[in-house]
Amino acid sequence: MTREAVTREAEEPGTVPRGIVVVGNGMAGSRLVSEIRARDPRVPLTVFGAEARRPYNRVLLSNVLAGAARADQIGLVDPAWYETSGVDARLGVEVVRVDREARTVHGSDGSAVPYGTLVIATGSSSFVPPIPGTEGGLPAGAVAFRTLDDCEAIIGAAEGARRAVVIGGGLLGVEAARGLAGRGLEVTVAHLAGHLMDRQLDAGAGKVLARTLGRLGVRARLEAVVTGIRTAPDRDGAARVNGVELAAPGGGAEAAEAAEVLDADLVVLACGVRPEVGLARAAGLEVDRGIVVDETLRSVSDPSVRAIGECSQYGGTVYGLVAPAWEQAAVLADLLTGADALARFTGAREITRLKAAGVDLVAMGETHHGDDDPDVEIIRFADASRGTYKKVAIREGRVIGGILLGETGTAGTLTQLYDRAAPPPADRLSLFFTGVGGARPADSPVRMPDAATVCHCNNVSKGQILECWEKGARTAEEVAARTRASTGCGGCQDTVAGIVDWLAEQDHDGPGQVRVGVGAAPGG
Amino acid sequence: MTREAVTREAEEPGTVPRGIVVVGNGMAGSRLVSEIRARDPRVPLTVFGAEARRPYNRVLLSNVLAGAARADQIGLVDPAWYETSGVDARLGVEVVRVDREARTVHGSDGSAVPYGTLVIATGSSSFVPPIPGTEGGLPAGAVAFRTLDDCEAIIGAAEGARRAVVIGGGLLGVEAARGLAGRGLEVTVAHLAGHLMDRQLDAGAGKVLARTLGRLGVRARLEAVVTGIRTAPDRDGAARVNGVELAAPGGGAEAAEAAEVLDADLVVLACGVRPEVGLARAAGLEVDRGIVVDETLRSVSDPSVRAIGECSQYGGTVYGLVAPAWEQAAVLADLLTGADALARFTGAREITRLKAAGVDLVAMGETHHGDDDPDVEIIRFADASRGTYKKVAIREGRVIGGILLGETGTAGTLTQLYDRAAPPPADRLSLFFTGVGGARPADSPVRMPDAATVCHCNNVSKGQILECWEKGARTAEEVAARTRASTGCGGCQDTVAGIVDWLAEQDHDGPGQVRVGVGAAPGG
Repeated sequence: MTREAVTREAEEPGTVPRGIVVVGNGMAGSRLVSEIRARDPRVPLTVFGAEARRPYNRVLLSNVLAGAARADQIGLVDPAWYETSGVDARLGVEVVRVDREARTVHGSDGSAVPYGTLVIATGSSSFVPPIPGTEGGLPAGAVAFRTLDDCEAIIGAAEGARRAVVIGGGLLGVEAARGLAGRGLEVTVAHLAGHLMDRQLDAGAGKVLARTLGRLGVRARLEAVVTGIRTAPDRDGAARVNGVELAAPGGGAEAAEAAEVLDADLVVLACGVRPEVGLARAAGLEVDRGIVVDETLRSVSDPSVRAIGECSQYGGTVYGLVAPAWEQAAVLADLLTGADALARFTGAREITRLKAAGVDLVAMGETHHGDDDPDVEIIRFADASRGTYKKVAIREGRVIGGILLGETGTAGTLTQLYDRAAPPPADRLSLFFTGVGGARPADSPVRMPDAATVCHCNNVSKGQILECWEKGARTAEEVAARTRASTGCGGCQDTVAGIVDWLAEQDHDGPGQVRVGVGAAPGG
Repeated sequence: MTREAVTREAEEPGTVPRGIVVVGNGMAGSRLVSEIRARDPRVPLTVFGAEARRPYNRVLLSNVLAGAARADQIGLVDPAWYETSGVDARLGVEVVRVDREARTVHGSDGSAVPYGTLVIATGSSSFVPPIPGTEGGLPAGAVAFRTLDDCEAIIGAAEGARRAVVIGGGLLGVEAARGLAGRGLEVTVAHLAGHLMDRQLDAGAGKVLARTLGRLGVRARLEAVVTGIRTAPDRDGAARVNGVELAAPGGGAEAAEAAEVLDADLVVLACGVRPEVGLARAAGLEVDRGIVVDETLRSVSDPSVRAIGECSQYGGTVYGLVAPAWEQAAVLADLLTGADALARFTGAREITRLKAAGVDLVAMGETHHGDDDPDVEIIRFADASRGTYKKVAIREGRVIGGILLGETGTAGTLTQLYDRAAPPPADRLSLFFTGVGGARPADSPVRMPDAATVCHCNNVSKGQILECWEKGARTAEEVAARTRASTGCGGCQDTVAGIVDWLAEQDHDGPGQVRVGVGAAPGG
């Protein structure tokens, strides 16, 4: 490591120049490392990863669980890349202490690495609620779902299992349940709230989702208070799960007696995550729910420390989806390399996509308003037996939230309006239905403005894909390799492929045609 | 009256032939009289009407109340017609007794008329609940809304009034409230149920309706228990309404004390109607809620007695809308004149249309199913702030009910499917939105099948309008005069006009064109 190298954004003139140390090699940390290297091939760069594996796309874990992808298909960085790129990658080494005075981090392997800038990207860990029977750790057959190791453990346990209970009916729990049902298990989701995915969905959408999942073999037990995980000795005498206890509805004195037991030979815990802030807190940094940062992602306690991803908190919000984390990574790379000293993270709009076979769901923003709020226009369409539920909320002439469940054909239109807090079309139906009232779907390549975001995870616009085509990319894979479009949650794969097909068609008609669509594409 | 005349459907061979006596000259009775005369110019025919006026279209009373029609515009029969048609019309004479032994009716004027067939068409009268303060009859300024006299009384009282309370938020109450608001009064509807028009609408539609009415100046007080009508002496010392008392929410011991008073100088009672069956009951006929009849509209107690309209009950149902009453009149005219001895009334589907400026509403069939019923597909669209609420219920592949509120462009399509218990289109959206998914509105004349009902009140098909055109009718008025289409609730006026315009256009293109649409029109 070149101690003499300087970070381009010299923070404290006169001090000894030191390198960048990134703690955490998950979605945020690994992205930051590659974003920095893309901008600056030389700045000294060390990354610590607690997992010994190369970084992987956590968003796609549910695909692995469902059997739709293999573990080796979701890797984010080729291990050889670290070597060729001059990144000091310490995989399998946990950082156990930060000495802010000495500006040094200490690894679990006894190593110490000084930093000019420390970036904390420790993410979050699964929250395991205090369920009786889990005090000494989870028994065999029970897994908290968070990492690729967890995912492989679940898949292993599912092999011999017949009945699974997923505790927690949020996004991750629903994805896990659907994946397990796809593997042939009888699956019950035990969820504390009155409807599934209650954070993202209103009650109406939650009901329709439950009905759709029911058809796919997933039963939902709502308002379910889990009071225990039951075990029995297996052949080797070790405790192994055989059931999940639920309190009687309403609770009360007789709840314990009236407890119902859901038979289960596999229990998956998906009870949410908590920001991993122990290291930061121990180092004396200001931590609320996450490490409190400003719009340069700098800790409010220490100008040499930054934090991104699920362990950070900006403007009161801990962002839990990949798109904001990757946006933060790009902003921070701009700042640390000096590529754009004015780059700022000013908050992000979160758009949730459920990735589960047979369930199409996109949800964003404020989705819980009822029809009674005089300040919010709520448009709703539902056909529960067909699994369709759509809702859009509009306030002061701006789209402030929405749900598309079952049919997501207008997701492009809706997310664009939501992203930009743009006014909705006078014909509200075009938010719900494609080809309605003369409106064209905004995700038709011809109609889509160049500025429209195609890949929300990686913030890639249609214009950037056109530019990429102009520079020679001719397939969706080539576009993905150059722009990263479609490599996040994968939800925009069809759109990217559609744009590429359209460009190929235009090209076939004559090269001049493409430029019309591209506008002032540089280097075209 | 020609005692010797025979009713064509000779019921009891060997008896002295006698004429037809119709008791009641409202929507059902007056219609029967003209239907009989249209089929048989000679059969002896007597009609008693308790109201001295000529019969009028009760459905349009709300238009009169709203000022959109004058009383003299809603008459159904020209008084001179009775004379020229040989109908013995006894207007202003109430029938006080039926002597079934002697087959004779006795009038309030002391007259006695023998009958071969007696038709009871006494309709219904408004139900006035036992509200304290109304024991000795309604005080000045309070009117139960049912007849044209009531309507004129309300209009008179509204002249000097500022605040009106309508008791009852059913169809009639809502129409009355809208009409009074249109006359500039502050109007409150006090309704016992949790939402307006709860018989026809589900809670969601009721809420949207209340919101729309709110914008039109009508306030809804729901779950309102009226405990009294308050009065104060007027200048002449007579009691005159000045308020309506409501019980405190939840009732209970303190309800009386906590009562709220709605100020009102006009109170309209629209608390529903009761079949007028006193005469029939006194005559010993079987009466349940209405006079029980079979599918020939014959009393199950007496083959010489028939009953139609709101005082009759067929198959457990008392029909409360004009279309079934008019259908019964036509069936009975066929039977009594022998025009069609096989004619039968086998029940009717009721379609409710709200007639109030600024509120478009059509409702039919089963509208109260929730999304949870696994046997019923419920499709719903709502945009409450724009006043739109649409719902369709489908069971076993048939449309069993629906609501269109705010936008009723697909009312033609929906009512046709409902009328015939027909399977809905695979593209459910075309039930809600015109021009969606390639579907054409079924009420475009070209697409509309000849069998499609255009006027539901009078059961006039598109084919009959085409036939009428072929026979020389060239305006909507001429079509209305010949087919009666559009003379009921008036809801199909635009459609009739549209068909006539379309025919005129076709005719302009060449006379051969029309026949293509008409098919095998007789006499064309």
